[in-house]
Amino acid sequence: MKGIGVGVIGLGTVGAGVVKLLTTLREPLATRLGFTPELVRACDVRAQRGAELGLRAEQFTTSVAELLGTPGLEVVVELIGGIEPARTIMLTALRAGKHVVTANKALLALHGAELFATAQEMGVSLRCDASVAGGIPILNVLDGCLTANHVPSLYGIINGTTNFILTRMTEGNDTLARALADAQRLGFAEANPTLDLNGHDAAHKLTVLAMLMYGQQVAFDAVYCEGIEEISPTDIRHAAELGYALKLLAVAKCVPGDQPRLELRVHPTLVPAESPLASVRREYNAIFLTGDAVGNQMFYGKGAGELPTASAVMADILLIGRQLTPARTFYRSRPYPVTPMPEVTCQYYLRFSTVDQPGVLGTLCTTLSRHGISILSCMQKEHQETRDYVHIVIMTHAAREGSVRAALAEIDQLELVRHPARLLRIERV
Amino acid sequence: MKGIGVGVIGLGTVGAGVVKLLTTLREPLATRLGFTPELVRACDVRAQRGAELGLRAEQFTTSVAELLGTPGLEVVVELIGGIEPARTIMLTALRAGKHVVTANKALLALHGAELFATAQEMGVSLRCDASVAGGIPILNVLDGCLTANHVPSLYGIINGTTNFILTRMTEGNDTLARALADAQRLGFAEANPTLDLNGHDAAHKLTVLAMLMYGQQVAFDAVYCEGIEEISPTDIRHAAELGYALKLLAVAKCVPGDQPRLELRVHPTLVPAESPLASVRREYNAIFLTGDAVGNQMFYGKGAGELPTASAVMADILLIGRQLTPARTFYRSRPYPVTPMPEVTCQYYLRFSTVDQPGVLGTLCTTLSRHGISILSCMQKEHQETRDYVHIVIMTHAAREGSVRAALAEIDQLELVRHPARLLRIERV
Repeated sequence: MKGIGVGVIGLGTVGAGVVKLLTTLREPLATRLGFTPELVRACDVRAQRGAELGLRAEQFTTSVAELLGTPGLEVVVELIGGIEPARTIMLTALRAGKHVVTANKALLALHGAELFATAQEMGVSLRCDASVAGGIPILNVLDGCLTANHVPSLYGIINGTTNFILTRMTEGNDTLARALADAQRLGFAEANPTLDLNGHDAAHKLTVLAMLMYGQQVAFDAVYCEGIEEISPTDIRHAAELGYALKLLAVAKCVPGDQPRLELRVHPTLVPAESPLASVRREYNAIFLTGDAVGNQMFYGKGAGELPTASAVMADILLIGRQLTPARTFYRSRPYPVTPMPEVTCQYYLRFSTVDQPGVLGTLCTTLSRHGISILSCMQKEHQETRDYVHIVIMTHAAREGSVRAALAEIDQLELVRHPARLLRIERV
Repeated sequence: MKGIGVGVIGLGTVGAGVVKLLTTLREPLATRLGFTPELVRACDVRAQRGAELGLRAEQFTTSVAELLGTPGLEVVVELIGGIEPARTIMLTALRAGKHVVTANKALLALHGAELFATAQEMGVSLRCDASVAGGIPILNVLDGCLTANHVPSLYGIINGTTNFILTRMTEGNDTLARALADAQRLGFAEANPTLDLNGHDAAHKLTVLAMLMYGQQVAFDAVYCEGIEEISPTDIRHAAELGYALKLLAVAKCVPGDQPRLELRVHPTLVPAESPLASVRREYNAIFLTGDAVGNQMFYGKGAGELPTASAVMADILLIGRQLTPARTFYRSRPYPVTPMPEVTCQYYLRFSTVDQPGVLGTLCTTLSRHGISILSCMQKEHQETRDYVHIVIMTHAAREGSVRAALAEIDQLELVRHPARLLRIERV
């Protein structure tokens, strides 16, 4: 029975899960696959970590160099996260002819081009299914099962922390601060949740998705990113009254034309209450995509956690074990450019806070119209005595983001406006 | 650039889709994969079919033997369906050392053991992603992405025809006959819908799923199968009032124990209205599964149609092209036995039609209790003047199917009963 030598660098939550699966699955996998993945070495900066996880002394080291020199090592699993030293370690491993498996979305988003090129040059695999949506095999599905499809659009709930928070704010009418505290207490948010709240984590993942889906380099800076820090329960309530749910969506679109273009963006988004994405609750993730051959598909599951993510890492190790991916040509010959956000066309939810006097609604409508924005529906809430302003919510037909921004800038200057307008985008998934 | 020689046998709807994808994707795939799938020959009994699909004369034949002898042929795609001559053709192709791709669930359900054994013996691949749930890559996901998972339970809506019909009956309050006529008019049901309505098509697919998921032979006869022929709008309405939706589910469970056992069954099933499966409407398919590492996952998409199914066939051709599947050990060393239906434990919805007189409910409850069946809830509908009976609906706690059947047999003999009791199973997906 052939053994596949695996080394794991970084024994945090996911690393511990991988060690667990490598140990418990050795025998069952042997009978089904005809080979066994073998943990030849694991590495962590904490000297006692190996013993904590039940590893034998010769299976553990605190030195990455020592791990990379272990005889029989074929697959290196990088799970330390962050940019450095992860980048240098992965490049060193690839250049030494090792296959690499990683869950590091930030590194791939920023340095994916260099890493994939190095893997291709060395004729080894670089697999990263665990980097997006944890246990949902979206990257391997796009790569292996939907290869015959062009994907004109993909909508993803790919950050469990923010989805948990938005679920709490929607169902429990909680403030962002209370919902976040809840998420932290239950282990669905880290002590420092900045990269989740500001959308950067989802944008990292969207970058990786787009690279693999469209087979081209994607600059992280080209991905539009807006977080949920400014979301208030008021907007969520208004949205619900109108039949929409609020989700932090990662959106990838390939807009056809003489020169097809990509839209890549992460932002709070209203989706119809009856959309399958609206019912994705709490820490769950989901990806809704349209393939030109398969039509609409949705993949739903846990986007994080010890064993879901470790399962994705194992899948990649086993795919390499089966020699599923001899050096493939990674990049398309003619990459698509990315559409800048002002040129994106979308429907909008706009909330204005204005004085309660005749002519206000007319002024708003005229201004929007002058910018080429046409109105789908309008709702003016009753004046509350405790406030010196009223809420007017306007839903628009599809309009250019640049035009909408220009119209709002103009409206925000008006005397009748009490607070800057609130903008949310609508996707009819 | 290496070309992979592909031959397609059977140019019906799906075959035509495969020819289309092979033609249009040749160039884009070449740049991404480093090889091109090439249609070397196609075969159909209708002599004019090649010309209809734009094939050159030398690419088409009406003779299977001629197709199998085509120089450069590496992958045979079998799309004629049915048992014979499909079985003989596939065995001949495998024995000639060709890889085989098929969408033929009936053949795999009845003769999968023989076919997979022949493929393994010859060291070639037999891939069948298109045989279950069309464009949803469930078999390839189970095989390639969830290999590190044991799957204790899987619930599938894997027959689009019946799901379309049940959706119409639920939302339009249609009778089965009217809903079926609609499905036929819209192309979601065949002229002879027997295998869909009686659940056999779903049972064929469940057999294939179970074989691949658990890595063992599964006898088609061991799969319990009940169709939707007896479903009435009344039951759907009652279920809705109780907060449930009615779906034809394929259920696979691996029940743990000293000797783990499989439950494999296809039957009309109530699922909670808030279940993700309840919102799978019309011709769509979905599979909800639990992996011991990944937790809950759901895969949703189109389960039939020219291009969705052809996309799955293409995925298999391309996986073979990448040499993803060198002869793997297909069978587990210790197969699980299948639990006979009477030993399955489930919750039930029971509807009784009885005379309207004191003591009836007590008699029903006592009888159920004597068989060890405990009651979760009970609803007696008001007596309608036009009928000489009333409806009593009882929802049970988990009970053995055998006990429930025995209790119902006893109750159906009672004088107070006007019509045989109606039984539906509940799965809290």
